[in-house]
Amino acid sequence: MRIKDIGEFGLIKRFQKKIKTDSCVVKGSGDDCAVLKLNQSSYQLFTCDMIVEGVDFFKTTDLRLVGRKALAISISDIAACGGIPKHAVVALGLPRNMQVHQIERLGKGLFDLAREFNINIVGGDISASSKLIIDVSMLGVVEKNKLCLRQGARAGDIIMVTGEFGGAIKGKHLKFTPRLKEAQFLVNNFKINAMIDVSDGLVGDLGHILEQSSVGAVLYESLIPLSKQALGSEEALCSGEEFELLFTASRDQASKIIKSVKYRFKVIGEIMPESFGLRLINYKNRYSRLKLRGYRHF
Amino acid sequence: MRIKDIGEFGLIKRFQKKIKTDSCVVKGSGDDCAVLKLNQSSYQLFTCDMIVEGVDFFKTTDLRLVGRKALAISISDIAACGGIPKHAVVALGLPRNMQVHQIERLGKGLFDLAREFNINIVGGDISASSKLIIDVSMLGVVEKNKLCLRQGARAGDIIMVTGEFGGAIKGKHLKFTPRLKEAQFLVNNFKINAMIDVSDGLVGDLGHILEQSSVGAVLYESLIPLSKQALGSEEALCSGEEFELLFTASRDQASKIIKSVKYRFKVIGEIMPESFGLRLINYKNRYSRLKLRGYRHF
Repeated sequence: MRIKDIGEFGLIKRFQKKIKTDSCVVKGSGDDCAVLKLNQSSYQLFTCDMIVEGVDFFKTTDLRLVGRKALAISISDIAACGGIPKHAVVALGLPRNMQVHQIERLGKGLFDLAREFNINIVGGDISASSKLIIDVSMLGVVEKNKLCLRQGARAGDIIMVTGEFGGAIKGKHLKFTPRLKEAQFLVNNFKINAMIDVSDGLVGDLGHILEQSSVGAVLYESLIPLSKQALGSEEALCSGEEFELLFTASRDQASKIIKSVKYRFKVIGEIMPESFGLRLINYKNRYSRLKLRGYRHF
Repeated sequence: MRIKDIGEFGLIKRFQKKIKTDSCVVKGSGDDCAVLKLNQSSYQLFTCDMIVEGVDFFKTTDLRLVGRKALAISISDIAACGGIPKHAVVALGLPRNMQVHQIERLGKGLFDLAREFNINIVGGDISASSKLIIDVSMLGVVEKNKLCLRQGARAGDIIMVTGEFGGAIKGKHLKFTPRLKEAQFLVNNFKINAMIDVSDGLVGDLGHILEQSSVGAVLYESLIPLSKQALGSEEALCSGEEFELLFTASRDQASKIIKSVKYRFKVIGEIMPESFGLRLINYKNRYSRLKLRGYRHF
């Protein structure tokens, strides 16, 4: 049996079964970040994301954008948990024939974004590697009552998103601004029941919320905000690496959230009981069942 | 200019110049771990280490040992700072055609060692990659007065080591037990001025202590503990990935440390003023100057 037979998530589930953690761990593997006990008022968030040449970017991609992306995806994970990013370490796998000015360009993208988000780059590791690899591990902090996980959605919640979806591969996946300000605005002013950043696709990541919250959902095709790059709503529903936030809140909270002037949040559906599954109401007002599939690495 | 022209450490120095950190960071890039403010009595330690197929292990290496090594090297970093490892996240770059049972063997090595050292594996990331890559990021904790850095060595200090050196490439680099117990025994019972784990070679890593402490040193060839696998003292002085601890303490403290029955620590030299440089006294009682070079990735 090869990885592609069980997929990335099948593999993760196999690993998760073998993991035992102690009482310092509030939430281990299976969310955007691990959640660790820190002090009376706050938790620490801990996450890592690896990007690899030929998979997450190409040999011809501007290395400033590659460095930027490497950091941005971890910021997005911390944001999705309601936290604030603080510190990062960076492991680099570098091809031996790489030019120093190329690596410095990569560093520039990474350091510039770190400065913009007040993140301390506190260490790293450099190895030789046939392809360029960057793995960023990040620490953040979240007030206990602001922590958002995938598991808090409840039937009746309204499903909302930041931004627009579709065609991220055409550039947004390298240039997106992590939705930290939006996430902070949400957790500081409202009660958010579940939140995730959309890296595996809208349907795929909504699927993570549904699975971990043991609920179902209905999405309205006509409500999916489409980016200019979107090929259509079907593509927008599956497009990976959009790095928008997907979250749920009670109907009461949602009605206040959509009135926000500072940031625009859009309703795309509603959380339903688990038995409902996941359904899409299309433009013709007809139901169809959706499969919970997003981007697959294998 | 390519990486190999300035080397791994030249590259790191270039990066370090561009890094600014805030007051939460006690010690950033440049030691075994980053040191972060945690609470009144303790600091948090944060480190990452990446290992890559074809560089740190081979396609034919038992994957249980590969998984074990990936975690062990980060434990060694935490130990060298006087700390206790707590949590880790694991980023995996996996070849698409890898068998699930192979990955599970890798996981077994990693999880077994995690259990042995009471480390919580709290998350990770899986990517496709042409070669197998494992990057472990680890958090630890150290009492403030027990923190050991590379920068604390003083002229007159005695230089000591755990274990024996030489030929780690023949097996020890995959099978070593991180010297956490020894490190804890040292910091709990003595005043250790500087400590590092030997990954770049005894001379190379002593060089890091000398540079950061602004001191020199003399080593006695006849005192270097040689492993059975050592080709000779010259090889033992440069052999990378030994993962023994190298530390310095005052003459008074050292005289107590060498009397330890529980663990054996050996004197190999003495810290000298910076102007002395680094010299080796060979078997014929003659001085020679040593270049501060250890293992080079590029």
